[in-house]
Amino acid sequence: MTTSVPAAVNPPRRILMGPGPSDTHPRVWAALAAPTVGHLDPYFLQIMTEMQAMLRQVFRTTNELTLAVSGTGSAGMETCVVNLIEPGDKMVVCVNGVFGGRMADVAGRCGAQVTIVERPFGDIFSTAEIAEVVKRVQPKVVGIVNAETSTGAWQPLEEISKVVHDAGALLLVDCVTSLGGVPLEVDQWGLDAVYSGTQKCLSCPPGLAPVTFSPRAVAAIEARKTKVASWYLDLTMVRNYWGQSRAYHHTAPINMNYGLHEALRLVLEEGLEARHARHMKNHKALKAGLAAIGIKYAVAEGQQLPMLNAVLIPEGIDDAAVRGQLLSEFGIEIGGGLGPMKGKTWRIGLMGEASSPCNVLLFLAALERCLSDRGYKLSPGASVAAANAFYAKG
Amino acid sequence: MTTSVPAAVNPPRRILMGPGPSDTHPRVWAALAAPTVGHLDPYFLQIMTEMQAMLRQVFRTTNELTLAVSGTGSAGMETCVVNLIEPGDKMVVCVNGVFGGRMADVAGRCGAQVTIVERPFGDIFSTAEIAEVVKRVQPKVVGIVNAETSTGAWQPLEEISKVVHDAGALLLVDCVTSLGGVPLEVDQWGLDAVYSGTQKCLSCPPGLAPVTFSPRAVAAIEARKTKVASWYLDLTMVRNYWGQSRAYHHTAPINMNYGLHEALRLVLEEGLEARHARHMKNHKALKAGLAAIGIKYAVAEGQQLPMLNAVLIPEGIDDAAVRGQLLSEFGIEIGGGLGPMKGKTWRIGLMGEASSPCNVLLFLAALERCLSDRGYKLSPGASVAAANAFYAKG
Repeated sequence: MTTSVPAAVNPPRRILMGPGPSDTHPRVWAALAAPTVGHLDPYFLQIMTEMQAMLRQVFRTTNELTLAVSGTGSAGMETCVVNLIEPGDKMVVCVNGVFGGRMADVAGRCGAQVTIVERPFGDIFSTAEIAEVVKRVQPKVVGIVNAETSTGAWQPLEEISKVVHDAGALLLVDCVTSLGGVPLEVDQWGLDAVYSGTQKCLSCPPGLAPVTFSPRAVAAIEARKTKVASWYLDLTMVRNYWGQSRAYHHTAPINMNYGLHEALRLVLEEGLEARHARHMKNHKALKAGLAAIGIKYAVAEGQQLPMLNAVLIPEGIDDAAVRGQLLSEFGIEIGGGLGPMKGKTWRIGLMGEASSPCNVLLFLAALERCLSDRGYKLSPGASVAAANAFYAKG
Repeated sequence: MTTSVPAAVNPPRRILMGPGPSDTHPRVWAALAAPTVGHLDPYFLQIMTEMQAMLRQVFRTTNELTLAVSGTGSAGMETCVVNLIEPGDKMVVCVNGVFGGRMADVAGRCGAQVTIVERPFGDIFSTAEIAEVVKRVQPKVVGIVNAETSTGAWQPLEEISKVVHDAGALLLVDCVTSLGGVPLEVDQWGLDAVYSGTQKCLSCPPGLAPVTFSPRAVAAIEARKTKVASWYLDLTMVRNYWGQSRAYHHTAPINMNYGLHEALRLVLEEGLEARHARHMKNHKALKAGLAAIGIKYAVAEGQQLPMLNAVLIPEGIDDAAVRGQLLSEFGIEIGGGLGPMKGKTWRIGLMGEASSPCNVLLFLAALERCLSDRGYKLSPGASVAAANAFYAKG
């Protein structure tokens, strides 16, 4: 075999306005590049303790079992499911997008008797229909997605949590895209197992999955009669490494944890309320701009996620060609639709660092250009003017 | 809840001479901090293709299914096991240390009928005993550890591979600590499923697990009748993202992949043969130095790993106190023993960037000091003199 060595990594500079990863603050990159220490080094153990304290603040919880799983958001999903489910356990999974469907798949693989409740992509679930299904099925766990990254739909949780608990079940929630972008009250709403990712509104590169488990969920884990199906994600062991005994389980991704540590510092420095307000403001400005050129949202009013704007691609406009032009001419990444939305929607992310007036204005200007190039009728500058007018109102 | 923000990450500078993570080249840190792009960005897809080509060179294989799993080394172990094993399949696991034991645990969790063959910690397996057990059990898979990080024992594979294949089984091998440090010939030796980690002799921070699967192993995966137990690690899907269709599975850890890309470039720039020779030379120098002050290896002559030197702690010397002094006074991390070796051995890593004459000489000098402080009788400077004499001979 002859040796062949490619050129060094030298990425183009992107503006990440897709479904994640989102733009990263340079302070996070610097943290990623800090000198590696051992996974049992007293300094790293201190970093882990600080991360747990920051994650609890961001999740709005006092849950002891709060940590960052050594994998991306989907590993967080699998962690929540495999630790709560034993073969034969009943689980209700609410599917209104790709990630609900993924959760049902994960649950089936670890032996759950899965009952799927479905809504069309883009819709959300009513409390009444969840109340009906939990009464009928009597599940151990109900799984639902707070922010469906595949559709842009925003699922309220507080009332659903009540009916799930009234039926004696645990509520497992996908907050991959919501955490850090919209209000999330783990303790107040009584959420039992919650997972997220780093590369959405926390604005850290992908690689870790923050999770938190309520005392009720921990009791369910402790009452298991069988081993957790996954060794790597088994919290009965992982919790000892993050807990007081510091027992070695697997080697933690040291530098990724440095990065998340810095990203969490940025979130807390800004403050959760201010961060949520920023996400909402830039969402509204984008929406005003898009409305001015006739672009409509794919999700009903009142159910739209501020950090993930799923809009309908105008008739006759080539999905991939526009996304390609945005990327090649402007360095702007947006997402296409997933599943049944493929070719029908664009997913415009305004997540974390990427949620800024600069990104909103630049994106609208660039989109006008891409649409005009394809014969789409618009009043030139109208979208930017509308967004600017929104910002000017304060 | 009041907001509490800790200080920024500011790690002490360590010399990583434990069982991993090992020292990292600054070029890898710089790569980790390169701007994040999307996981479906044409630039990132190119990086993935380049990484696969480099991993094939390092693994010495033409296996198409060669990629980096989005988790640490133990996720690599779980990937190999869960993809090859279906409930009820027979698997023989060779246990002569912590990581063989872990493999048996992983196999049991995904439903394997596990037959354990055991050797005391620090020993290796003979071809004859493996031949006997595969003939008796007729397993689908035999799992073995090439470099037992917990004991420092070096398991030869070539003859064992023959007897495993003669019995119609697949050979699954843990090369977490061996890859990049000692010769490993995936194709020539006929290894079927091999996993490694990034934080040992590849000298990248932990976070990814390189794996490679032979065509025989791929055929076994394709012949499965049941879904892979883990969604996150399911290669029937992950391979499509790394393969030609580039179908989205999970969001890859972009910046970790940048880091591994640069670490692999460093490995290939040095050349595998030169790198193996460097590991062996520094091992021999360390060994000469340790012998000069009466420190003995825990593993028999001829079976000692060059990158992980497991030595017996002299009688009366406090394990934790010496490791604490090395860390606090010199910034040197070494490892303690695991399992039955706890308190009995030190594990001195000379992995990747950490395998250097500077580290060998400094460590010996520092160890002399720690031992002398505790009344251990030695001829001052003898270990350093012996190592220097070894290097002087060339």
